[in-house]
Amino acid sequence: MKVKVVTRILEANERLAEENRKRFKEAGVFVMNLMGAPGAGKTSLLEKTILELKTRVRIGVIEGDIAGTDDAERIHNTGVPVVQINTGGACHLDANMISEVLPEMPLGELDMVIVENVGNLVCPAEFKVGEDIKAMVLSITEGHDKPLKYPLMFQESAALVLNKVDLLPYVNVDMQKLKNDAISLNPKLKIFEVSCKTGEGLHRWTEWLNGLK
Amino acid sequence: MKVKVVTRILEANERLAEENRKRFKEAGVFVMNLMGAPGAGKTSLLEKTILELKTRVRIGVIEGDIAGTDDAERIHNTGVPVVQINTGGACHLDANMISEVLPEMPLGELDMVIVENVGNLVCPAEFKVGEDIKAMVLSITEGHDKPLKYPLMFQESAALVLNKVDLLPYVNVDMQKLKNDAISLNPKLKIFEVSCKTGEGLHRWTEWLNGLK
Repeated sequence: MKVKVVTRILEANERLAEENRKRFKEAGVFVMNLMGAPGAGKTSLLEKTILELKTRVRIGVIEGDIAGTDDAERIHNTGVPVVQINTGGACHLDANMISEVLPEMPLGELDMVIVENVGNLVCPAEFKVGEDIKAMVLSITEGHDKPLKYPLMFQESAALVLNKVDLLPYVNVDMQKLKNDAISLNPKLKIFEVSCKTGEGLHRWTEWLNGLK
Repeated sequence: MKVKVVTRILEANERLAEENRKRFKEAGVFVMNLMGAPGAGKTSLLEKTILELKTRVRIGVIEGDIAGTDDAERIHNTGVPVVQINTGGACHLDANMISEVLPEMPLGELDMVIVENVGNLVCPAEFKVGEDIKAMVLSITEGHDKPLKYPLMFQESAALVLNKVDLLPYVNVDMQKLKNDAISLNPKLKIFEVSCKTGEGLHRWTEWLNGLK
């Protein structure tokens, strides 16, 4: 019974996600659903990505948070259109939340929309929002055991951005195990090692993303 | 309608949590529900806490993870009874999951049970499992913006353990803002600054916990 209810919620979400996807496609907009744990550096990666690409790619951002507008304000300061969704408790964005804010997004003037999901390694991976790809950010301070403990997000993501590599000398993390376990879950996963603080590795990421739109 | 369904799920969970709480109370066992984001250091804190207290306090552990038994194996190596719950996708533990594994826990031989919840700053705060207190671990690498973005967990916790303070020289985190925002959400919150890597600050935490049982 429990499973049935969950299945129905997911099915209804998939239908709405497909409607969103059609609206994005008609507008010629590429959509990335960016996921990761709290504090992994999703907003920092977005800021750096926008600053690097905004002269070439017209980007809009949908920010998802339980509460607050901190992230939307940070993105607003980069000069691109941004809408904040406050889920009011829900631990992930769903297709309906995105659908409701789409009228606020000037899709006709954009090439790419990046949806920053709620900080959570679990449920965001289950709920499509109408994206072309999912990507995830993992701070290397979170440890090398994350792929095997949160497999679905690694399986659903087209790219894994390993952030905060400037902290590698100070933490006990086995990067090879982390990458091997991620690839064993998802052999097609593109892995980027970056530091949003120092800028290391970001160029390869932004060029890859630019090539997808 | 949506709200009604959620309310009923939470009500059913509260009833089961109350039953668990009675079973723990009858056995004279103090229960802490330990929460935090993926990679905050919940299992590391548990290992250190057990090693410090196990000659004085008979501790048992219930480990919650989406998948895998890594954490249960780490706890098993400390020599205390441990049971692993794999939620198979669910992003939090609930009272029913705890109830199902209680027969595996030798409650009559224990003073304290620590439940390590799924790594997630959101839903674990909504679902009681029968605990006396909730506590949360936050890695300082997650940033000072977490209290205002994930307020419920800070409000529900009796203690906030700020872990990985050995990394303070290498990250941009405003500890005063972090602590002020946490206290503004929950004036009774006890805050501990620790490093599970160096051992710094752990004694104050373990003595506080020992005083509660």
